[in-house]
Amino acid sequence: MKLYGGVETGGTWCVCALGTGPGDIRAREQFPTTCPEETLERVVEFFENHPPPEALGIGSFGPVDLDRNSPTWGQVTTTPKPGWQRTPVATVLRDRLNVAVVFDTDVNAAAVGEQRWGAGRGRASVCYLTVGTGIGAGLIINGKPVHGLVHPEVGHMRIPHDAHADPFGGNCPVHGDCWEGLASGRAIAERWGTLPTELPDNHPAWPLEADYLAQGILSIVCVASPHRVIAGGGVMQRPGLLPIVRQRLRDLVAGYLDTPLLGVGIDDYVVSPELGDDAGVLGAIALAQAANS
Amino acid sequence: MKLYGGVETGGTWCVCALGTGPGDIRAREQFPTTCPEETLERVVEFFENHPPPEALGIGSFGPVDLDRNSPTWGQVTTTPKPGWQRTPVATVLRDRLNVAVVFDTDVNAAAVGEQRWGAGRGRASVCYLTVGTGIGAGLIINGKPVHGLVHPEVGHMRIPHDAHADPFGGNCPVHGDCWEGLASGRAIAERWGTLPTELPDNHPAWPLEADYLAQGILSIVCVASPHRVIAGGGVMQRPGLLPIVRQRLRDLVAGYLDTPLLGVGIDDYVVSPELGDDAGVLGAIALAQAANS
Repeated sequence: MKLYGGVETGGTWCVCALGTGPGDIRAREQFPTTCPEETLERVVEFFENHPPPEALGIGSFGPVDLDRNSPTWGQVTTTPKPGWQRTPVATVLRDRLNVAVVFDTDVNAAAVGEQRWGAGRGRASVCYLTVGTGIGAGLIINGKPVHGLVHPEVGHMRIPHDAHADPFGGNCPVHGDCWEGLASGRAIAERWGTLPTELPDNHPAWPLEADYLAQGILSIVCVASPHRVIAGGGVMQRPGLLPIVRQRLRDLVAGYLDTPLLGVGIDDYVVSPELGDDAGVLGAIALAQAANS
Repeated sequence: MKLYGGVETGGTWCVCALGTGPGDIRAREQFPTTCPEETLERVVEFFENHPPPEALGIGSFGPVDLDRNSPTWGQVTTTPKPGWQRTPVATVLRDRLNVAVVFDTDVNAAAVGEQRWGAGRGRASVCYLTVGTGIGAGLIINGKPVHGLVHPEVGHMRIPHDAHADPFGGNCPVHGDCWEGLASGRAIAERWGTLPTELPDNHPAWPLEADYLAQGILSIVCVASPHRVIAGGGVMQRPGLLPIVRQRLRDLVAGYLDTPLLGVGIDDYVVSPELGDDAGVLGAIALAQAANS
């Protein structure tokens, strides 16, 4: 079996792996995503210390340039993450490791991983949503990850925000009360003055969060109509949150879309990931395999 | 040249055409969409009176069932349009005319038509948005129209609605103030008590409408990232509306997405259709051609 490399350069952690799939990871390492020089150097070291992969898949936090015809292909572009603006992630790794690379967003990689080996198996189209420090989504439609003009940036769409019920103005540095500004883990922490994990189960934070998440998922459903939404990230791991998100989404759809999956069967529509923290790096391996076959 | 048939069964008008493309329409007829029996009978008559097409493309108002593996494939499903619930449009025309049919939404057909012969030429992904009596969109991503679990139903997503600035509660019979309930032609008429065409250019209806349209287009951009948005429909024909929609969309993006097309170049991003009222029926012909080749 040919070995493939996967790298997920997430906003917080960077994960490297070498293998063929979830049951066959020959080596794996993860470390904090610090400055680009140090982080990419550690990625290079990881792969130099192991047998060379046939190809390398990279799933990067964004925004990134995914256009293969662009002179800035493979770069992180306008990120607020200090030091990472204009970092040519894909070309640095390609040139340092002398290997063919496939470059996508971290969330598209996670969508690919979950569709190949996890909660998206057998679904023709998939949305992988992550609600953590920020909010992002990867989409697979008509057989491939969605790139498009830029790539999906669901966190920055707007959703209804009743400033009387929720006077918090949102904390997106660019947009204020966009979806991410209202419903990310960082927004929850700033609104209530404490970490989400410290909020009790009966706190009003949770029905409010469920409403915001359902509103955003509804927009994803109304625009892209994925066959399944896989909702991951730290905030989604809160016990009890997913069921109330599903219920609220079902209420918002209100029977208009003629499918049980947005009605009585909604537990089978918005689901948890199955690959946990490895969805991104496994998806990166799957992207490398697909490009090489 | 082989001849193909196209049918657009729109919510108001039904258009039939026979030909090979916009420069070569051999016959064309349009009539009001009345009850399903009468409307489909007129479609059958049109094609019986002309040389038989190699294949027939159908673009139908929705919601429809696009799943070829479903027993209700080709039906209009939960529409509020009287008499049309559960109408098996595709199988009736296939069986009456003994011809292979391709079935899609009217807006997907329009997206296909504009991509092949109109404002979407050369764009890898396209959103065709129509703002008329209702609001709908067709999307082409990764080479094909987006179907998915159901199909895009952008009109029913939610957008910010400031009930102080706009006390009108929306007029979607299912969702109240969803996008369509706030921003369709029907919503404008009900909010201001007069037809949109009767409202003067300096009426506050227009900046409000531009805001709502930009909010919804932003969601489409953030979810699906199309290379171009083609904005058609009766409301979009209002002179002066498109420029303020673009400006508002640009303000909402606020430089976050690293592309001139959502900044200084936005006039080249949200554009008017080029095929006018024939986008749907021409797209239906293109769908039939593609399926037959």
